[in-house]
Amino acid sequence: MKRFTFILENEKKKKLYPRDLAPKLQGVLMQNLPSEVAESLHQREINPYSTWVSRIDEEYKWEINVIDDKLAQRIETIFFDNDFKEIVLRSYGDLVMNIKEKKKEVHNIEKLSRNFYEKEAPSKFSISFLSPTSFKSQGEYVFFPDIRLLIQSAMRKYQALNENDKEVDEHLLQELESRARVTSYRTKSQYFKVHQSSIPAFEGEVTISVNGNQTLKNYIFMLFSFAEYSGVGIKSSMGMGKIKLVSK
Amino acid sequence: MKRFTFILENEKKKKLYPRDLAPKLQGVLMQNLPSEVAESLHQREINPYSTWVSRIDEEYKWEINVIDDKLAQRIETIFFDNDFKEIVLRSYGDLVMNIKEKKKEVHNIEKLSRNFYEKEAPSKFSISFLSPTSFKSQGEYVFFPDIRLLIQSAMRKYQALNENDKEVDEHLLQELESRARVTSYRTKSQYFKVHQSSIPAFEGEVTISVNGNQTLKNYIFMLFSFAEYSGVGIKSSMGMGKIKLVSK
Repeated sequence: MKRFTFILENEKKKKLYPRDLAPKLQGVLMQNLPSEVAESLHQREINPYSTWVSRIDEEYKWEINVIDDKLAQRIETIFFDNDFKEIVLRSYGDLVMNIKEKKKEVHNIEKLSRNFYEKEAPSKFSISFLSPTSFKSQGEYVFFPDIRLLIQSAMRKYQALNENDKEVDEHLLQELESRARVTSYRTKSQYFKVHQSSIPAFEGEVTISVNGNQTLKNYIFMLFSFAEYSGVGIKSSMGMGKIKLVSK
Repeated sequence: MKRFTFILENEKKKKLYPRDLAPKLQGVLMQNLPSEVAESLHQREINPYSTWVSRIDEEYKWEINVIDDKLAQRIETIFFDNDFKEIVLRSYGDLVMNIKEKKKEVHNIEKLSRNFYEKEAPSKFSISFLSPTSFKSQGEYVFFPDIRLLIQSAMRKYQALNENDKEVDEHLLQELESRARVTSYRTKSQYFKVHQSSIPAFEGEVTISVNGNQTLKNYIFMLFSFAEYSGVGIKSSMGMGKIKLVSK
């Protein structure tokens, strides 16, 4: 599992919204991959990568978290080539984004799992939703931090990407859901534009309290630790659903 | 239907939280009513009054909205007596709150209902939740602005206080719920202390969009107009669930 970070700057110092830039950069990522790879990624229900764009002063940080090692290798070969120095955004009138910095970090999924057994997860922790986050339930967008949908999404991504298991164990989900609750929050809606449509989503911070034995607490914390890489909810490959855990 | 407003100031300039002060002032209200009246109010499931405390600089505004005219008359007789100049709060160590201003306004429930027929309600409006608001559903507190619980509460209070009808028409509720949706929001949790317990609640602003014929839009808007007086959700007599409508 690798995390790639690119610091981008546009020559015109044009102010862009990270939430608008994110899907454009994902387009750039896809265009640079061999078409059969891009095609096969498009068809996957749960993507083995997530992206996130944030703004720091006049620069933009583009983060790509890649769970699949083969895909990580491909991306690295292309984007860390010394000749890969800029990105041209057609949808912004051929705006040139210079790549000022490139960084790669290796993160170990086994280490996350080991934390599960060796370390004690806290009973209370916060999740910051750093990019617009949304869930889909019964055909509708849910843009509140619903605890069930949150855990379900984290479990689904974890199982699909690590255990090749598409179906979430409904009993386990119910057990986890009944043990975890939101104790405080501060959120606001934030729409995320993809092509012509606008997806209702939210950003903010949520504090979760887990009541149960240590194994269960560790498991929930491990799921959300993994979700720092996979994202939560819909369209995490396009820049939605970026979370960060905060111990309380 | 009357709205009483009192501007209070404490001699010690002690800074109080409106959400802490509100239940104390409701206690003062009850103590000043004849005990059989207070007793009968305590036993009502839906109270014919609501209260709200807010802070403006170093002063406190205490608002009492009374739906029931007989109760309004009683409160007026007691609280608008010229000798009623101060309130002593025992739970704050006999803190004296001077009443600097008293105001009464008559609001007409028939006028609200007439608005229902004559004026066109907007398709989109916002609700500001000015004091901690919470709903109870299946024995649990719900401290998100759930559209169903919000409409259900407004309907229940309207029907109980105007039509003496305790049961909400489930078909109508479903129809209203399916036509109204939250399109944007900004809310945060805010606990409300009552005696020894702490009730999870929220404050903030929610924008609602109604899709349906004009009669339905008018009806929903009328319900929330009434809720400006009745409050929404639980413990509106103690200062929770104060809302204000904002046209968009």
